[in-house]
Amino acid sequence: MDVLNMKDPSFLKNMTDAELEQTAEDIRSFLIDKLSVTGGHLGPNLGVVELTLMLHQLYDSPKDKFLFDVGHQAYVHKILTGRADQFDTLRQHKGLCGFPKRSESIHDCWETGHSSTSLSGAMGMTLARDLKGTDENIVPIIGDGALTGGMALEALNHIGHEQRDMTVILNDNEMSIAPNVGAMHNMLGRMRTAGKYQKAKDDLEMLIKKVPAFGGRLAAAAERVKDSLKYLLVSGMFFEELGFTYLGPVDGHDLHDLRANISYAKKTKGPILIHVVTKKGKGYAPAENDAKGTWHGLGPYKIESGEVVKKPGPPSYSGVFAETMKTIARSDDKLVAVTPAMPNGSGLDKFAKEFPERMFDVGIAEQHATTMSAGLAAQGMKPVLAIYSTFLQRGYDQLVHDVCRQNLNVMFAIDRAGLVGADGETHQGVFDISYMRHLPNMTLLCPKDENEFQHMLYTAYQHNDGPIAVRYPRGAGTGAPMDKKLQELPIGTWETLRSGGDAAVLAVGTMVPVAEEAAELLAKEGISVEVINARSIKPLDETMLKRLHGEGKPLLTLEEHALQGGFGSAVLEFFNNENLYNVPVERMGIPDWYIEHGSVSDLLKEIGLTGENTAARIKSILPRKQQRA
Amino acid sequence: MDVLNMKDPSFLKNMTDAELEQTAEDIRSFLIDKLSVTGGHLGPNLGVVELTLMLHQLYDSPKDKFLFDVGHQAYVHKILTGRADQFDTLRQHKGLCGFPKRSESIHDCWETGHSSTSLSGAMGMTLARDLKGTDENIVPIIGDGALTGGMALEALNHIGHEQRDMTVILNDNEMSIAPNVGAMHNMLGRMRTAGKYQKAKDDLEMLIKKVPAFGGRLAAAAERVKDSLKYLLVSGMFFEELGFTYLGPVDGHDLHDLRANISYAKKTKGPILIHVVTKKGKGYAPAENDAKGTWHGLGPYKIESGEVVKKPGPPSYSGVFAETMKTIARSDDKLVAVTPAMPNGSGLDKFAKEFPERMFDVGIAEQHATTMSAGLAAQGMKPVLAIYSTFLQRGYDQLVHDVCRQNLNVMFAIDRAGLVGADGETHQGVFDISYMRHLPNMTLLCPKDENEFQHMLYTAYQHNDGPIAVRYPRGAGTGAPMDKKLQELPIGTWETLRSGGDAAVLAVGTMVPVAEEAAELLAKEGISVEVINARSIKPLDETMLKRLHGEGKPLLTLEEHALQGGFGSAVLEFFNNENLYNVPVERMGIPDWYIEHGSVSDLLKEIGLTGENTAARIKSILPRKQQRA
Repeated sequence: MDVLNMKDPSFLKNMTDAELEQTAEDIRSFLIDKLSVTGGHLGPNLGVVELTLMLHQLYDSPKDKFLFDVGHQAYVHKILTGRADQFDTLRQHKGLCGFPKRSESIHDCWETGHSSTSLSGAMGMTLARDLKGTDENIVPIIGDGALTGGMALEALNHIGHEQRDMTVILNDNEMSIAPNVGAMHNMLGRMRTAGKYQKAKDDLEMLIKKVPAFGGRLAAAAERVKDSLKYLLVSGMFFEELGFTYLGPVDGHDLHDLRANISYAKKTKGPILIHVVTKKGKGYAPAENDAKGTWHGLGPYKIESGEVVKKPGPPSYSGVFAETMKTIARSDDKLVAVTPAMPNGSGLDKFAKEFPERMFDVGIAEQHATTMSAGLAAQGMKPVLAIYSTFLQRGYDQLVHDVCRQNLNVMFAIDRAGLVGADGETHQGVFDISYMRHLPNMTLLCPKDENEFQHMLYTAYQHNDGPIAVRYPRGAGTGAPMDKKLQELPIGTWETLRSGGDAAVLAVGTMVPVAEEAAELLAKEGISVEVINARSIKPLDETMLKRLHGEGKPLLTLEEHALQGGFGSAVLEFFNNENLYNVPVERMGIPDWYIEHGSVSDLLKEIGLTGENTAARIKSILPRKQQRA
Repeated sequence: MDVLNMKDPSFLKNMTDAELEQTAEDIRSFLIDKLSVTGGHLGPNLGVVELTLMLHQLYDSPKDKFLFDVGHQAYVHKILTGRADQFDTLRQHKGLCGFPKRSESIHDCWETGHSSTSLSGAMGMTLARDLKGTDENIVPIIGDGALTGGMALEALNHIGHEQRDMTVILNDNEMSIAPNVGAMHNMLGRMRTAGKYQKAKDDLEMLIKKVPAFGGRLAAAAERVKDSLKYLLVSGMFFEELGFTYLGPVDGHDLHDLRANISYAKKTKGPILIHVVTKKGKGYAPAENDAKGTWHGLGPYKIESGEVVKKPGPPSYSGVFAETMKTIARSDDKLVAVTPAMPNGSGLDKFAKEFPERMFDVGIAEQHATTMSAGLAAQGMKPVLAIYSTFLQRGYDQLVHDVCRQNLNVMFAIDRAGLVGADGETHQGVFDISYMRHLPNMTLLCPKDENEFQHMLYTAYQHNDGPIAVRYPRGAGTGAPMDKKLQELPIGTWETLRSGGDAAVLAVGTMVPVAEEAAELLAKEGISVEVINARSIKPLDETMLKRLHGEGKPLLTLEEHALQGGFGSAVLEFFNNENLYNVPVERMGIPDWYIEHGSVSDLLKEIGLTGENTAARIKSILPRKQQRA
């Protein structure tokens, strides 16, 4: 069937394996073709084609519930449920979401984006089913990487305890985003190659069959040994210990093997875990042979050569981060870098090449990463935790309780702060100021460009008075010339980039160029606007705020961050604390709703964070006379 | 040695077992005696007397590092390190902290309060040690309950992977605060009674010894089986799978058994887990025979009878919560209650008596509890998650990503919001407004007394338009008469409790009586103050705010919550959004530091949240003429 004609997965029900194989091939071609233009998570989706086909053949969605953990591997599911025709708009503004989305289809029952949530969601759905007395199947599909997240482990513990019917599909692709980390990963590796143990088990069974010959005491002993036999099945021991029936390992590209195990699971009571081994990028050589994780999620590429289309441009913030860390580490052996499963994304893979023994990738484990950094700092090291704004949300209590409360010198390099674009609402980094500003002992900085960024990292590293965070955007810098020598910036100070007597804009990070654009526009109308780089969010530059208030100019705060509790609110709080009234303060930022996917520029336009709109807002707070100008 | 003469744990080094046993007895008597007056965590500390003695005999603190998970079981450690003379002030304002505290002693290297942090902290310290090339022992002591927390599991995974030297003491007391939940708990139970498996192993060894008689193929098979033998050791399998050397189970009250295992661990490389089985409340009958968790942490009691001293008073908020949930559940079978290991503290144990199949205690697993509630709501149930303000910090990302983003009807009953008293800075619930107010789709309420509370719970339960939270304080209500019938309150409305023309106080929750007291005081001076119960924090009562602004009265916001990003900031943001200036707004709340332990009234006095101080602050914002009155 033409991929574009797939409207409902019921067409799979009576397909033969040959037909399914053809369908798998069609879907792979479609994905490779479409994603070469739009970009997207190619590798993970090529890996789950057969698995997704088989799930839809054997279960009845939407009655049965599939919960795709992380969710970037749901493209095949989207195709099978009638969304192939929307793939030209994948991850674009108002287009098809890169993750499951309840508003898109009745087949999407659970939205994801962050990892390790599917088992908890599935447990809730299972309890709901049993309380309602219905009989749908609940099937979370979780990767081996996501399984190291603390929430997934909490859920395994609870699911094993409750012993309700649920089938967990463990999609073990041997490499999540980066090569996996952790004892559990090693364990899965042993399971995959469990032949040796299987052999031992067979041998033991043979031994026991001979036992009756010994008679009496030994026969009884053999019976008891049989009880213990299952413990020889090394594969699955961990999950069996937690109360699951373990099935596998299953070849995730073998329809017969998949069908046999899923069918068996459907007939079996209690919690079941099917260990499915898949190959990321299956069926497309460049993605199959991907050692670095390039094909996990990417932009456009050339199909024939597998060459990724790269736009030339200024260095990325991540790149500058890695370089600066290396520079500092060369002269300071206390610097230790920590990442929760983002060595490539954060740039720390480059750091690790030079300092392999001083970079720790702890896997998807943001809580552990945060508190482990506190432990490093408690013993005099200077840990730098590289983490995305949206993922540090997972470490919020650890910030409150372990880092800030103990006032430890942990430095946070908060990448992907602000809008992130195509990954959309689950990944926008627009809450970090609000969730960090009220933390006692915390210092929070944000640079206007990559040159200031390198100095700010250096400044943060030198800070020995408690935790400090630098938040910076995803992607490329502004093209600012890079200074050769790192300098310390005075914390709690802002800089005036352009003077002006009619109004002042206090802009944070990425909004500095927007403020400058607005000032340019207004200059043409004879309105002069002071542009301030508000690079220190906590503490504020109180001297400058008092000076501005004294001048009586209307002020506008501008941030790529939620308005509630954000930078603008900090400014309001300051004036309030100081009893400074009578100066209008206008606040621009992100409104009180979740911002969906799309290019950052489209999104900024949608919510009005543009030079033009900023200029208009400034005019609206000018005294009447100037408004007319 | 007299307990009060213990200054440094080195005195233990050369003690005989008889002397240690006498010391254990002395410490138990001391604890039972002192805590009968001050209250405190008696049960957990009586359980670890021998363990703590043995740790201090065999290791060298402060060079070696003990990390007490949760930390309420560190009293014995505090006694041995010279703090016995401070136990009269235990958990009191400016007195001895109930948890490890770095400022108290060089023997406290890591502060705790929340559970499950010790392994991550220990991993950080271990990496620091190895990078520095020093050789101290790192010894986290973690309970079986804390082991179900996601962060602890993340850490186990990483520690097992890194294979560095660390000795984890698993203090398995068979019941953490409430009876433990989860597959891991069942597993530990199997380990404790592993005799059956030990027998099977012995039998198998006997079988294998006979094998050479078969000769050839079977002999080789037997060799292979021997490789697998360790997998028959059910005890420890889970930890062995994760890369630990498992020792135990060890009788935690047997000095010889403890010494043998700890000594062996000291000589063994790599990560080791010693499974120590202890008896909570050991040596004091009322605490030993405690089925309900009363003796986990409690107030004063009579030593002879074990009778807990109870003050008569109004019903507690937790009690009202339980009653209200039962009332609603009787007529609505969609109500499902969820708690992360706090069935008693939350009051849900009472709910579970009537609705055992509709209450889920998931163990210490706040992330899972939050997202599982989202799963329940996604399938049409109405989950009510009972959780303390300080512990919901662990579920922050789940609030952002799973609950609010999917706009699911999860109701949060946020207990212990505001200052909690004796538990101190790790447990104060003073950030929840700041970490929830910026969440799109969230509604946030707070009652002034227990009668309003029951109506508010009912109101929140009826809300079918996304997540909603009710935050309420620890302990007893105000004694308000309780209405018989539950009523719905209009969300987004406040109520004027007292009218007045000179100023208005917008008070949240517990601060309403404080505002009333201030108004009383000022009335005597001829100043009339409007007192408003600002019970809806998100959304605000915008109509009332506009009315107040129109009247031009100075306003004061009053909250038992951090000032940064709190309720007062929400009011500032509103006036700012509406361009309403020219009315002074004064904000009172909790300043930008961590508030230590002490009675709530002492703490409120210290930070100035009293009627008297509120009156003074109101006077300070009155127009000159009135200030003189």
